[in-house]
Amino acid sequence: MQLIGPFSQLLTMDHLSLKGPLADQNLAIISQAGVVHDQGKIYAVGDFLKLQSQYPQAQVAYLEGDNVGMPGLIDAHTHICHAGSRAQDYSMRIGGKSYLDIAKEGGGIWRSVTATRNASEEALTAHILKRARRMIAQGVTTIEVKSGYGLSVASELRMLRAIRSAQETYPIFIPTCLAAHIPPKDRAGSASDYLKEIREELWPILLREGLTKRMDIFVEEGAFSVEEARTYLQQAQANGFDLTLHVDQFHPGSSLLAVELQALSADHLEASGTKEIQALAQSDVVAVALPGASLGLGDRFTPARRLLDAGASLAIASDWNPGSAPMGQLLLQAALLSVYEKLSTAETLAGLTIRAARALNLHDRGKLASDCRADIIAFPVDDYREILYQQGSLLPHRVWMRGQLFFP
Amino acid sequence: MQLIGPFSQLLTMDHLSLKGPLADQNLAIISQAGVVHDQGKIYAVGDFLKLQSQYPQAQVAYLEGDNVGMPGLIDAHTHICHAGSRAQDYSMRIGGKSYLDIAKEGGGIWRSVTATRNASEEALTAHILKRARRMIAQGVTTIEVKSGYGLSVASELRMLRAIRSAQETYPIFIPTCLAAHIPPKDRAGSASDYLKEIREELWPILLREGLTKRMDIFVEEGAFSVEEARTYLQQAQANGFDLTLHVDQFHPGSSLLAVELQALSADHLEASGTKEIQALAQSDVVAVALPGASLGLGDRFTPARRLLDAGASLAIASDWNPGSAPMGQLLLQAALLSVYEKLSTAETLAGLTIRAARALNLHDRGKLASDCRADIIAFPVDDYREILYQQGSLLPHRVWMRGQLFFP
Repeated sequence: MQLIGPFSQLLTMDHLSLKGPLADQNLAIISQAGVVHDQGKIYAVGDFLKLQSQYPQAQVAYLEGDNVGMPGLIDAHTHICHAGSRAQDYSMRIGGKSYLDIAKEGGGIWRSVTATRNASEEALTAHILKRARRMIAQGVTTIEVKSGYGLSVASELRMLRAIRSAQETYPIFIPTCLAAHIPPKDRAGSASDYLKEIREELWPILLREGLTKRMDIFVEEGAFSVEEARTYLQQAQANGFDLTLHVDQFHPGSSLLAVELQALSADHLEASGTKEIQALAQSDVVAVALPGASLGLGDRFTPARRLLDAGASLAIASDWNPGSAPMGQLLLQAALLSVYEKLSTAETLAGLTIRAARALNLHDRGKLASDCRADIIAFPVDDYREILYQQGSLLPHRVWMRGQLFFP
Repeated sequence: MQLIGPFSQLLTMDHLSLKGPLADQNLAIISQAGVVHDQGKIYAVGDFLKLQSQYPQAQVAYLEGDNVGMPGLIDAHTHICHAGSRAQDYSMRIGGKSYLDIAKEGGGIWRSVTATRNASEEALTAHILKRARRMIAQGVTTIEVKSGYGLSVASELRMLRAIRSAQETYPIFIPTCLAAHIPPKDRAGSASDYLKEIREELWPILLREGLTKRMDIFVEEGAFSVEEARTYLQQAQANGFDLTLHVDQFHPGSSLLAVELQALSADHLEASGTKEIQALAQSDVVAVALPGASLGLGDRFTPARRLLDAGASLAIASDWNPGSAPMGQLLLQAALLSVYEKLSTAETLAGLTIRAARALNLHDRGKLASDCRADIIAFPVDDYREILYQQGSLLPHRVWMRGQLFFP
């Protein structure tokens, strides 16, 4: 048993509404706070001195100087399992070349598919861990990771096994099957044929090996239609998978399928209109904004303010991927979404913690409360408002994962 | 005499047009390149092996692995001489509070003026150096620093002396007098009276002590009018000062004064329209985009693409300040401007080097060429396109200043 503290301010993120607007006054901030943890879980949270007298048996990890503590950040949408760079595509895009021009030069997602297919499972695991280390240093202690650059039964399987191997090093990954990223252009037959093959040949292995509980699909022109996605996801649900969808990125409407199927999350939503926003707000689907994709493409943000005002739950994730979101800085991206969309500090930090946990169907993290994982980060400042103010330039100086100092 | 290399790619940024669009083909990239320097200046640039045989007397600083080299970045517009945080203002702004609400709570620029006035010269110097160290680690080897949070003869003087003291530690600062930031609200009399006092009491000291060669003014509603600025700047010119202006930030038109007076640079320009863009393009005034201010306020970017297409010279600076631009990450900000405005890699990197040097009237840097300062940075990649692709997440692993390894 250990007592960590005192924190100048501790943001527990507990007892916050999971939907709708939040004001900073909703943050029940504890001054001069401590956290008692044991066996990787939080035992008690409260006033440091009181905890010290209540738990005299706890070893004290004494913090010097200013420290603002909060739960470790949760990145609910990433593609960090991939090989290869798309710097060449990117330079063409900023240089004004069209999507078609780039495709003619061999660019686009297929460049990542080729590089990822050519990578061994060990190489993919190493890529995940390298990117994860950078994220951990930014305070991220739970990372969702999608497959989706394999686009064949064997290659998707290799990606998901690489994520499982990474999990053996850092127990922080949540794997998701995105075999339905786009229809593979090197495969004969229709998109439906491909999805059928994935269902019949990949899913049984995923279930047998316990490789993922989550099924994702990209619903968009050039990817999969709403009808194709409905069939695929209904069968995923029948097989016990949780659902998450890439929807409304460039065209509105597909998010309505996420609502219809009561998915865990509807991700992207840059193109969502009033109808989609209302439907999401009336559902329990978590809207996941991906500012990294907006910043990577130089495009509009998810209408986060309107979603919250309508009553939706909003999480914020990095979408770190080699094509549209190469930056990989979750906190900075969230800060920029927040200033452009005018999200309060409470709304923004909830979107990185308790509301992001809900998008992943995780009930043991995203807040500092009894029985939750002791995933805690501390920033070297005396006021929580510095975190967003410094727009990603302020990094945590301490990261604990399951109660163990994880960084530095 | 020392030879640094081999660089996988070296971007000299030499022989580039100072105005108008640039394609990446304009970058004369040297593969397997070296730089010979002596006494802080560049002696020769070219093929590493040829340089090695031409200059056998040069000690070789051999670079292992992938290295893309280029001139050190130049940040032509900062306010890093200040004390105090504006995190409280910022949290109110993202929480949806208006400028007036924030002012009622004691926020706004006056909060920074108060904190800066209360800081000693030594404290201000320490603040500058701390921020400069972070910038150096990002590859910035020349930093313009403005006064402007003193708003009295004594306090402005203390700021400029603090910048001079910082210069004794790192010879990388270019000081600018921005006593004309806003009319001080604690001073009786008109804005013109204040400017008259600055001219008559501050300028003679600046000239006598050689504290700055540059005069700046913020022309905007709530700051100074075009008429007040014209008088002030004409007298500055008569006293031998170079001119730079904060113009067109929220309302268009004031940039025409920068053109009229043939200032070195016109900074901000977020609100510039066709008339202003045309006038700037036909002049030799460098347009300085400040994406950090756009990202800090959650507002539009400077119309950089239109400025370049019209034929203007475009530099990119951080505007690092405690109010509107708290991030302080020049390369990341430039990358985001580039993806939103569709600036080519060549245009973006020129805006951070050779065109930024021109905004500061510096002819000895911003390119790797004979007789220039040996300010060089190297990124641990094999392709220059990675620099913008990684959107500020890729940092230089080597920074040389006047030929000396400066970082790490």
